Amino acid sequence: MTYVSPGKGYERDSRYIATRITADGREGFPVRPGRYRLVVSRACPWASRAVVVRRLLGLEQALPMAVAGPVHDEDSWTFDLDPGGRDPVLGIERLKEAYLAREPGYDRGITVSAIVDVPTGAVVTNDFPQITIDMSLEWAPHHRPGAPELYPAELRPDIDAVNEVVYRDVNNGVYRAGFAGSQETYEEAYERLFARLDWLSDRLARSRYLVGDTITEADVRLFTTLVRFDAVYHGHFKCNRNKLAEMPVLWGYARDLFQTPGFGDTVDFDHIKRHYHLVHSDINPTGIVPAGPEPEPWLAPHDRAGLGGRPFGDGTPPGPLPRAERVPAGHNPLPGAGPP
Amino acid sequence: MTYVSPGKGYERDSRYIATRITADGREGFPVRPGRYRLVVSRACPWASRAVVVRRLLGLEQALPMAVAGPVHDEDSWTFDLDPGGRDPVLGIERLKEAYLAREPGYDRGITVSAIVDVPTGAVVTNDFPQITIDMSLEWAPHHRPGAPELYPAELRPDIDAVNEVVYRDVNNGVYRAGFAGSQETYEEAYERLFARLDWLSDRLARSRYLVGDTITEADVRLFTTLVRFDAVYHGHFKCNRNKLAEMPVLWGYARDLFQTPGFGDTVDFDHIKRHYHLVHSDINPTGIVPAGPEPEPWLAPHDRAGLGGRPFGDGTPPGPLPRAERVPAGHNPLPGAGPP
Repeated sequence: MTYVSPGKGYERDSRYIATRITADGREGFPVRPGRYRLVVSRACPWASRAVVVRRLLGLEQALPMAVAGPVHDEDSWTFDLDPGGRDPVLGIERLKEAYLAREPGYDRGITVSAIVDVPTGAVVTNDFPQITIDMSLEWAPHHRPGAPELYPAELRPDIDAVNEVVYRDVNNGVYRAGFAGSQETYEEAYERLFARLDWLSDRLARSRYLVGDTITEADVRLFTTLVRFDAVYHGHFKCNRNKLAEMPVLWGYARDLFQTPGFGDTVDFDHIKRHYHLVHSDINPTGIVPAGPEPEPWLAPHDRAGLGGRPFGDGTPPGPLPRAERVPAGHNPLPGAGPP
Repeated sequence: MTYVSPGKGYERDSRYIATRITADGREGFPVRPGRYRLVVSRACPWASRAVVVRRLLGLEQALPMAVAGPVHDEDSWTFDLDPGGRDPVLGIERLKEAYLAREPGYDRGITVSAIVDVPTGAVVTNDFPQITIDMSLEWAPHHRPGAPELYPAELRPDIDAVNEVVYRDVNNGVYRAGFAGSQETYEEAYERLFARLDWLSDRLARSRYLVGDTITEADVRLFTTLVRFDAVYHGHFKCNRNKLAEMPVLWGYARDLFQTPGFGDTVDFDHIKRHYHLVHSDINPTGIVPAGPEPEPWLAPHDRAGLGGRPFGDGTPPGPLPRAERVPAGHNPLPGAGPP
């Protein structure tokens, strides 16, 4: 598939379906446990935000999840991990079907996360930055006991400000480097990325989390990029001033989160590596998937507890993953990964 | 250009022109100062062996050198760095001309190093493993005072044994990984490469140099691969179990050599990075050259002196580089690089 436009910088198509699922149902889609299906890929950093937030908040029952296979074709993400290649609830093979159910002739991105309205089989929204915020605020009555506040009112301006620059320079910045169609646009993205990572390192040298002293939405958004950094962005996207493992503060911060229930236990390195290296055939035409790096260092002690912080604030960590949602053994170094 | 054969492992075409230049001239090409021209590229690890050995032995006057540009086309290495795009001594634009002068219809690899007979303009040899040995043995009368013994008689069996496995698993192993046409052949090369690097690390943890207590041909051959490791092999060739900078013993060993006159001062990171990323268009079709990693860590203290060893044995280090042979400023982190 083609991601790079020769001679040009990368511009993400950000025309999302922005309908919101709200407590009051003012856009026609009220929060209702079991009514919707969250479609994700564990390969995708944008979708993985929703996977982490859903788990931290304990929305597994209220908002069931479908996991697409890591490798998709021109036509869309597929449910090839499911028996018969169909999502058992939506009954479809391709996520595109749910987009077309929403809008015949839909011709923009078939992206994850997408939340599908199960009764109609139609996508409600794929507006990923709003999805996780709405999970925190609109779905609050269905959070587990002890769920953390990931987007507390008093910190929202700070969280929003951090998210904005992290999105521009880091989350999307790695794509701007990797999909650059010219040396100039690549180098511009690379410089901004590493300048921002240095800025984040300075900030995180003094503070266990990005905003305040608890885990927030800002940490989730940075984590899903950092956890992919050495596996795909460093080599495949040429973000190679250094590895995450060579930036001690960020590497400690990322390991701390990885080892926190709800973060690392959602990560599938196999899906991540296969997705990027197989789908972006215009930057990796041989389709060889790198064997490294080894994931075990994610389990090394992080020494971040000395910075204080209360990971879940007045709340508690999420419990063990439901068996059906465990990442397959061998796809993640955590001892609990995979079925027994 | 095409290097990868889909579905297949990489096999190097090793049919070299094996004529030797010897002291006794028994193959028609006697050692004669000024008669031959060593054509190299600073991008190429095989050619760089000859660049290092020539400098350690002080053969600059006896065997003048032509440096080809880093980027070549289907048709051959070119002298595009020279005024008018021609080598000033051979008068040719493309190295291929010297191969055709040797053998009309020559259809094998146009490789560097190649030693050209200046009177006839014809390649004498491109048999790179023999070229450096002959520099040590056949050209001995023209060595500088204080030249080291890089291939001492009593160590030859050990040097040959190390060279053989280092060639197979490391020097050529990185190419077998990078040019693999199937996941299986890639993984086989990757496993052998890192198993051999671990073996070398064990050996070098106890010994400053690979064989004996002085620099030998074996160190030159390992160095020219290690110095390219993080710049091109780790990302571009997917040799990414870890960076050289993450293998403390090998990284210290490589820095020690880099900082030894005759090694690092021959290295042109700009040529290395541009060559691999621009010429291997079937594995990097976008032609974007990664901006990282930064080369300054090559100058960090190496702490290898405590292992003892006598770098040049009873000899001495080479003096400063002739001005004409200095690597351009910005292509190498050593303070002496580049014209003043």
